[in-house]
Amino acid sequence: MTLDEFKTLLQKQKINVFFLPRGNCFLGQDILPEENLLRQLTGFTGSAGSLLILTKGKSVLFVDGRYELQAAGQIDNQQIGIICTTTGHISPTEWMKNKLPEKFVLGFDPWLISHQEFLHWNRTCPSFKLIPLPLDKLLRVQPQIPKSKIFEHNIEFCGVSRDEKISAVLTSLQQENLDAYLFTAADSSSWLLNLRAPSLPDTPLLRGYTLIDRQGSVSLFTYAHDIEDTKTINGLNIYDITELPKRLSAYKRQTVGVDFNICPEQIFSFAKKYKITLRHRADIAAPLKCIKNPVELQGIREAHIRDGIALVLFLHWLDNAPAGQTELDIVQKLREFRQRQQNFFSDSFATIAAFGPNGAIIHYQPVSETNLELKPGSLLLLDSGGQYFDGTTDVTRTVAVGTPDTEMIDKYTTVLKGHIALLSAIFPEGTAGRQLDTLARAPLWRCGIDYNHGTGHGVGCFLNVHEGPTGISKTYSAQPLATGMITSVEPGYYRENHYGIRIENLAEVIEADQTGFLTFSSLTLVPYDRRLINPALLSKDELDWIDTYHRRVADTLSPRLPAETAKWLKKACRPLIKK
Amino acid sequence: MTLDEFKTLLQKQKINVFFLPRGNCFLGQDILPEENLLRQLTGFTGSAGSLLILTKGKSVLFVDGRYELQAAGQIDNQQIGIICTTTGHISPTEWMKNKLPEKFVLGFDPWLISHQEFLHWNRTCPSFKLIPLPLDKLLRVQPQIPKSKIFEHNIEFCGVSRDEKISAVLTSLQQENLDAYLFTAADSSSWLLNLRAPSLPDTPLLRGYTLIDRQGSVSLFTYAHDIEDTKTINGLNIYDITELPKRLSAYKRQTVGVDFNICPEQIFSFAKKYKITLRHRADIAAPLKCIKNPVELQGIREAHIRDGIALVLFLHWLDNAPAGQTELDIVQKLREFRQRQQNFFSDSFATIAAFGPNGAIIHYQPVSETNLELKPGSLLLLDSGGQYFDGTTDVTRTVAVGTPDTEMIDKYTTVLKGHIALLSAIFPEGTAGRQLDTLARAPLWRCGIDYNHGTGHGVGCFLNVHEGPTGISKTYSAQPLATGMITSVEPGYYRENHYGIRIENLAEVIEADQTGFLTFSSLTLVPYDRRLINPALLSKDELDWIDTYHRRVADTLSPRLPAETAKWLKKACRPLIKK
Repeated sequence: MTLDEFKTLLQKQKINVFFLPRGNCFLGQDILPEENLLRQLTGFTGSAGSLLILTKGKSVLFVDGRYELQAAGQIDNQQIGIICTTTGHISPTEWMKNKLPEKFVLGFDPWLISHQEFLHWNRTCPSFKLIPLPLDKLLRVQPQIPKSKIFEHNIEFCGVSRDEKISAVLTSLQQENLDAYLFTAADSSSWLLNLRAPSLPDTPLLRGYTLIDRQGSVSLFTYAHDIEDTKTINGLNIYDITELPKRLSAYKRQTVGVDFNICPEQIFSFAKKYKITLRHRADIAAPLKCIKNPVELQGIREAHIRDGIALVLFLHWLDNAPAGQTELDIVQKLREFRQRQQNFFSDSFATIAAFGPNGAIIHYQPVSETNLELKPGSLLLLDSGGQYFDGTTDVTRTVAVGTPDTEMIDKYTTVLKGHIALLSAIFPEGTAGRQLDTLARAPLWRCGIDYNHGTGHGVGCFLNVHEGPTGISKTYSAQPLATGMITSVEPGYYRENHYGIRIENLAEVIEADQTGFLTFSSLTLVPYDRRLINPALLSKDELDWIDTYHRRVADTLSPRLPAETAKWLKKACRPLIKK
Repeated sequence: MTLDEFKTLLQKQKINVFFLPRGNCFLGQDILPEENLLRQLTGFTGSAGSLLILTKGKSVLFVDGRYELQAAGQIDNQQIGIICTTTGHISPTEWMKNKLPEKFVLGFDPWLISHQEFLHWNRTCPSFKLIPLPLDKLLRVQPQIPKSKIFEHNIEFCGVSRDEKISAVLTSLQQENLDAYLFTAADSSSWLLNLRAPSLPDTPLLRGYTLIDRQGSVSLFTYAHDIEDTKTINGLNIYDITELPKRLSAYKRQTVGVDFNICPEQIFSFAKKYKITLRHRADIAAPLKCIKNPVELQGIREAHIRDGIALVLFLHWLDNAPAGQTELDIVQKLREFRQRQQNFFSDSFATIAAFGPNGAIIHYQPVSETNLELKPGSLLLLDSGGQYFDGTTDVTRTVAVGTPDTEMIDKYTTVLKGHIALLSAIFPEGTAGRQLDTLARAPLWRCGIDYNHGTGHGVGCFLNVHEGPTGISKTYSAQPLATGMITSVEPGYYRENHYGIRIENLAEVIEADQTGFLTFSSLTLVPYDRRLINPALLSKDELDWIDTYHRRVADTLSPRLPAETAKWLKKACRPLIKK
């Protein structure tokens, strides 16, 4: 389907503007290719964005800072304008309010829009006429969703039984006087039920809603073909997702909790029909899920050791690789090293192997049309991760190809200063992620540079590589950090048309020596490229920090590496401070 | 009136709980003693707080971290419990929701509650019955407000004429399609009309509302006895504040803008009666007022030089003062030095001269019952400021009395590190104050300590010493900093029952050398006490910063000081880095 064809359908429905986010009924960023109508209509491949389709005139694609450059290269700019929400400080709703006539008719798919967003439209653009229009009705096709089989996430990996998790939910229901709670986030269902499915290429997400009522009845609503072999799961009612309205109707005149921020507006239509009161209650699973239990933490640490081994084997190989390697070769080679590791399941996202100018496109992923060959004199930005049954990894290293110039070295060292400042921060319990964001940026700011993305995101355990509410950014991330949370720490610097630098570790939040204070402990175990470090720009404390980290990397990984690679690693990790 | 007598009045009105903030109809923190019913009922003298008076049972006083210790020492804890909103992370509304029965009757004075707060109650505690009950009706007395005379803030000080400011408001009215705007913040009226009054002891605030309509008619509503000699002010209609409802009624069926956050709920009753639509529009004056114009900036810089002279004369005197000085002597002596300065009008707040353990009470003000004599071996925390016609100052210095111990020195040096880190920060345009807060705290956190108050507040020009929306704190301060804004930078450390340390400069936001980046320039010119600095704890950059600042202080002030004091200053400012 082309954008023009889509517009014709809209015109028949007398719609002036249609709001199309990249999403599905779980309102997260993990969607199937079949669900990506945004990409189909625009060519934009990024992981977040939304399109305002004006039936008359140019449409507008809203993307965040990570995708500003990439979107510009992918869309037809005759048909579509781009607005960067980060630099433009404007949301699609504010744009609609400012730019569109008062009496506009706004169409949307009520499965793709949260109730909160719907309320926000009502408040911000009260004169608009809002028309719910599910895409399957508009397009008269159901997306063909490939089969995938649900499996258990074993207790040796997840650490806490399904019954124990459900019991915590039931306590909440009683405390809050709710008759039931509907979990609409797929990763909450996955975590709560200790179930996974290989439905998405990089995330073992069980795509389903879970309804738990006060009597302890637990119902999973998922896709029919996912169910086949799982009818036997103990004490769990499994239904096709299309049965949700019917099953919900059993709670007539009762009060059901949902998270308005992630509950599709469509659920509110059902509730109205069945006289169910929906009450806002932030996702009950989210604050439990983001604090990893001891079994998960142990597994995650182990997974990072294996991931470190894969990366070090790769870096050793790269150092001696024959000339002519391309970005796609890199992606392939790195996957090979990861695949050999115990408990490996899949990559945790499409590897970003970005050489030279491609590195400046923050979320670049190589495809054959853009695939560059590595040539001496620039940088390779390599952001990748693995899904292991015992943990999810996400690591970025920037490495020199050939001899880097002084500017590259100075900028890398500056980004590294930010990375160290945040990882070594000590902060009181109750500190929100957004209070720490500036620590990673301050050394860059001092040089008049910055990066147009967040500094850290939470990470699931054998689940989403981006998991809220943990996070570190300028404006969001109000969630206080607590021991057992996991976040990335990934400052960067991007010089358009030249190169990109990003340095990312995952870290767990741990208690600091100072009573009542917390700090980070790196999970990621991969050396920084010393060819890119200018020790003269680093303080004694910073040099110490790197040497201590490198010693830990070498001590932990060497015993598990072949002799040649262990030798390479020893050299890569030798101290910067001369004794 | 006692709390018990007040409760009896409430019971007659069938009120279960009454919400009494410290405030008046301008919803700011500057109130007359006659308006301070909170103090009268509780004994609490702090500048912010609110009391939930339960007619049956113990009442609850809500204060922020600055007043936690102080409140405990002032109230009768049999009658009143204290909740610190900062450490408890709970607002009075949340507390009411969690702790009070669903069907409670909540009384409040609609002049003292913003519409926003009223809406918040409705949403959070929907089952409460809300009863507006103005205090003058409940108490059957009108507060006796002392006379004060309005005067012009001359153009040589304020820089921009009243007509020009009003013209900016008229442009806003047109852009936003409003028929009129009602300014409810007294400092907005003062700034907008270039008028002041000596109504409050430390703030030359004109206490009034201003109504501007699209035809350009400007009406000031203030206290009758304030008006007498000012009938002649050009083009300005001046009314007694009691005439507001009558004058508002002229806008029947029209749309009037107000800031819901600072507009008393009472105004909404008037609007309802007269069928006026009130639309939320953040205070139009606030974002203009907080960015100082070149004339104001010049005046503010000059005022700080004069204030620095007063402080240095004082510190020189203190160094040689006979034994036996008390906190109240200090307050008196410092005022004498300030009073001699050109353009001096009043103190800008009640001086905090806090010796030894009193220093740990963050907003302590000496009174005869608590007045301590300065004795060797501890610290004097001195937080004070002046209202000059050309600018408002606010400065804190902590000075050693006798020989300080190592712990005092180390803690002072740590606080100084935070002070320097923030003052020397470089940050991109668009950075909000709250993004910078952590820079001042990080060095303290590293030692496992913190301070329970904000890091910086905006400051008016010959106006409020606390002026929004500029500010630097953990959670508020979303306002982006911009050149021409003024903020305090005042980290601290408080050791209960021992001493307090706070180091505060005012600074203006200026352009940094890096394009698109900003930094601070200190306005305050007063040396730091070198007896409290341990250079071994400071980096080369930090030592450089102090030496550069001290050189500027000495170079600027010395030519205007008597020879003996200049000599003292030269010694106080000699470099820490030995050449």
